[in-house]
Amino acid sequence: NIWRDRPEEPKGLVQLFPLQYAGKPYAEKANEIFNALDTEKAQACVITLPDSICWLLNVRGDDVPMLPIVLSTVILDVENRKIEWFVDPDKISNEIISAFEDDVVIKDISGLQARLEEVAGLSKSNKKSVLLDPENASVWFKTVLESAGARVQDYRDPCIDPKAIKNSSEQDSIRKAHIIDGVAMTRFLHWLDGIDENSGESEISVADKLEEFRQQGKGYRGPSFDTISGFAENGAIVHYEASENSNKSIDKAGLLLVDSGGQYEGGTTDITRTVSIGEPTKDMKENFTLVLKGHIALASAKFSEKTKAESLDLLARQFLLRKGRDYAHGTGHGVGCYLSVHEEASGITTISPKPVKAGMLLSNEPGYYKEGEYGIRTENLILAREAGKCEGRNLLLLEFETVSFAPIERSLIVSEMLDRDEKAWLNGYHEQVKEKISPHLDDDVKSWLEEKTAPIL
Amino acid sequence: NIWRDRPEEPKGLVQLFPLQYAGKPYAEKANEIFNALDTEKAQACVITLPDSICWLLNVRGDDVPMLPIVLSTVILDVENRKIEWFVDPDKISNEIISAFEDDVVIKDISGLQARLEEVAGLSKSNKKSVLLDPENASVWFKTVLESAGARVQDYRDPCIDPKAIKNSSEQDSIRKAHIIDGVAMTRFLHWLDGIDENSGESEISVADKLEEFRQQGKGYRGPSFDTISGFAENGAIVHYEASENSNKSIDKAGLLLVDSGGQYEGGTTDITRTVSIGEPTKDMKENFTLVLKGHIALASAKFSEKTKAESLDLLARQFLLRKGRDYAHGTGHGVGCYLSVHEEASGITTISPKPVKAGMLLSNEPGYYKEGEYGIRTENLILAREAGKCEGRNLLLLEFETVSFAPIERSLIVSEMLDRDEKAWLNGYHEQVKEKISPHLDDDVKSWLEEKTAPIL
Repeated sequence: NIWRDRPEEPKGLVQLFPLQYAGKPYAEKANEIFNALDTEKAQACVITLPDSICWLLNVRGDDVPMLPIVLSTVILDVENRKIEWFVDPDKISNEIISAFEDDVVIKDISGLQARLEEVAGLSKSNKKSVLLDPENASVWFKTVLESAGARVQDYRDPCIDPKAIKNSSEQDSIRKAHIIDGVAMTRFLHWLDGIDENSGESEISVADKLEEFRQQGKGYRGPSFDTISGFAENGAIVHYEASENSNKSIDKAGLLLVDSGGQYEGGTTDITRTVSIGEPTKDMKENFTLVLKGHIALASAKFSEKTKAESLDLLARQFLLRKGRDYAHGTGHGVGCYLSVHEEASGITTISPKPVKAGMLLSNEPGYYKEGEYGIRTENLILAREAGKCEGRNLLLLEFETVSFAPIERSLIVSEMLDRDEKAWLNGYHEQVKEKISPHLDDDVKSWLEEKTAPIL
Repeated sequence: NIWRDRPEEPKGLVQLFPLQYAGKPYAEKANEIFNALDTEKAQACVITLPDSICWLLNVRGDDVPMLPIVLSTVILDVENRKIEWFVDPDKISNEIISAFEDDVVIKDISGLQARLEEVAGLSKSNKKSVLLDPENASVWFKTVLESAGARVQDYRDPCIDPKAIKNSSEQDSIRKAHIIDGVAMTRFLHWLDGIDENSGESEISVADKLEEFRQQGKGYRGPSFDTISGFAENGAIVHYEASENSNKSIDKAGLLLVDSGGQYEGGTTDITRTVSIGEPTKDMKENFTLVLKGHIALASAKFSEKTKAESLDLLARQFLLRKGRDYAHGTGHGVGCYLSVHEEASGITTISPKPVKAGMLLSNEPGYYKEGEYGIRTENLILAREAGKCEGRNLLLLEFETVSFAPIERSLIVSEMLDRDEKAWLNGYHEQVKEKISPHLDDDVKSWLEEKTAPIL
């Protein structure tokens, strides 16, 4: 009532998310969700998270920048195992309508309140509850349902956990998206390597250049979040976003941190590289290497299926901590499959009591920030997978597959700070970067990449 | 009733544990315990753990091999803030009696049951409970108390947690005991270095030799547990104890693992070293180095006061796990101060949800066991201490001080598997071993130690 100049609701067209990427028909996902709900005495379950709805129905939308979601609501009719999808009809084409069987009923979102009240009435007379996620649904849903007599039961959105475990088709399409993104990143890093303090570039101009490279990638749909391009002291601001006012010229020696990602038709990327403009100091190289050691410790870790994610977090921090340094952010967040770049079911932080499961896609992004001087972060996405049994023990191990491919700046690495296995990881990673990215590069960038991925001895 | 040939109760004489080692008078400890109990509505608290009683009263005993405890029971009279100590009067000298004020009442243990029944009666009429540790008290106590009408309340022995935090006097006396023990260990390792497959030694004979060296140490009171001396395939049996039947001759090339400890008048030690008889294989050296890397990762870790011990456990396992290997035991256990070599309040295992606190004394003992071939373990004791604030963050860090000093076998280390900081830790540790132990050695052992502690480049 008080938001008088509220803009019109967005009307982004709904697109199907092809089965070749999604890997599992919506009906199969719905079946699993309904099976899980069978143990509750529930009339209905209301899903309000747009990315849960998109995951469940294998659709994507265009309502919001960076995030290919459809603003809409789903009511899962538990008794009849039907999905009622409340969405603006302007967003729905005939193609979408014909993609669903009669187990999905598409309804005009203007009828949502009346239907919630109806469901509430049924819940009351059947003595069943309506399930609603207290952490994600707005209070409006609870008020409408309770006013109409429903017993509302707190229930975590049942799509959150299965959404976090990527199936093999999702994994394949994520890997493909990362190759395309890696080509853009590599071309960008090659271009960056050619600039210096006299090139007239700025934080914003380099971010624009990266976007230019990404736009040439097949299936690119736009950035997955606002690029963080932080030069020198701005790099030390963890969630920095360059504005016209803060935009720093790259007109001196210093580190440049670029954290960016793309939405591709089959996957979402998120990658950070730090490069040096001019000659780096000894201190910069030492801290870059400590961050890299933490990155490698997590990337190459094997761990029990019972190991809490917070223990993995310490692997990434251990080398900085030993010097009394740390970074004031998590080590990793969950990432969607052509969905949100931040998914909530998984994470690697100092307070993540849950274990990592095979199929989870996470970021691996330790950093170091020297206030007023520079920031360092090295980020790849990692996919958890089974790694066989532990020798002589009845213990299933997990490990990570790194899926982001772009060179890590060699000139910032102090090689004697790496042990044999860390060098082997780095050289193996760079070998993979060369193999996967080179075929898509012009000759000049290809020979540059050859140098940038030469083994460290 | 059915144990007809039960031996006499032991009658080891009680000795005072001097204040210079204990650091805190019994009355001060009792005061803190009574203050904690004030928040409970309790008539009394029954302490049955002998090492808790010894810690509280600053006494030690001689009732049990390896463990200098007094078999006895304490009733804390909460209302009158008095300690009733039920103990065999034959164990008590006049010196002991005169060491206590009238806040400690020494009573004949034969009167324990009658007094428990009396306390139970008071508990009933005062509507207060009797506190008893369900994990440590035998069921006899509960039966006696409840039969006499007491409301028994489960309550963790209130001495367990304070006992785990060593005060500065305890820390000093622990450090001193470890120097004396380190001299014995170093002389033993020097002697071991002179034997080969033709020396006619066996697992038991080398353990006896070590005991001989320990017995020459000032204040030595005996072993803190049965020495584990495991040669070749016996070394792979984690809790192996050589018997006359299993005793293996050292008559071929192989690894020898010796895990042992001493009770000294001011502290308890526990140390493991693994040495090679004859030429070690590449595989042995690689695994020895992986274990050492884990040992160093824990020994040199800095971590938040909130970090769970199970996260620290992963630091010690990470390098083995990365190769799909692990050890089927905890990384560290709590150790007492001239008390039990296994204290329960602290521990570093895969399931230790509690954080480590400054003052805790723990073992650091990762290992690797190749069934049917050999065992490796490198163990030192470590003392947790504050390590200042983390740079740029409001986070108090902790770190460990290693207090065991004996050379770690250099010929088993693959130096290129260590990074710069690991080499610095090892060289710094060996420098300390030389400084602290050399002054107490004869010239031949001293020059041997000089070689054994030379820096690794």
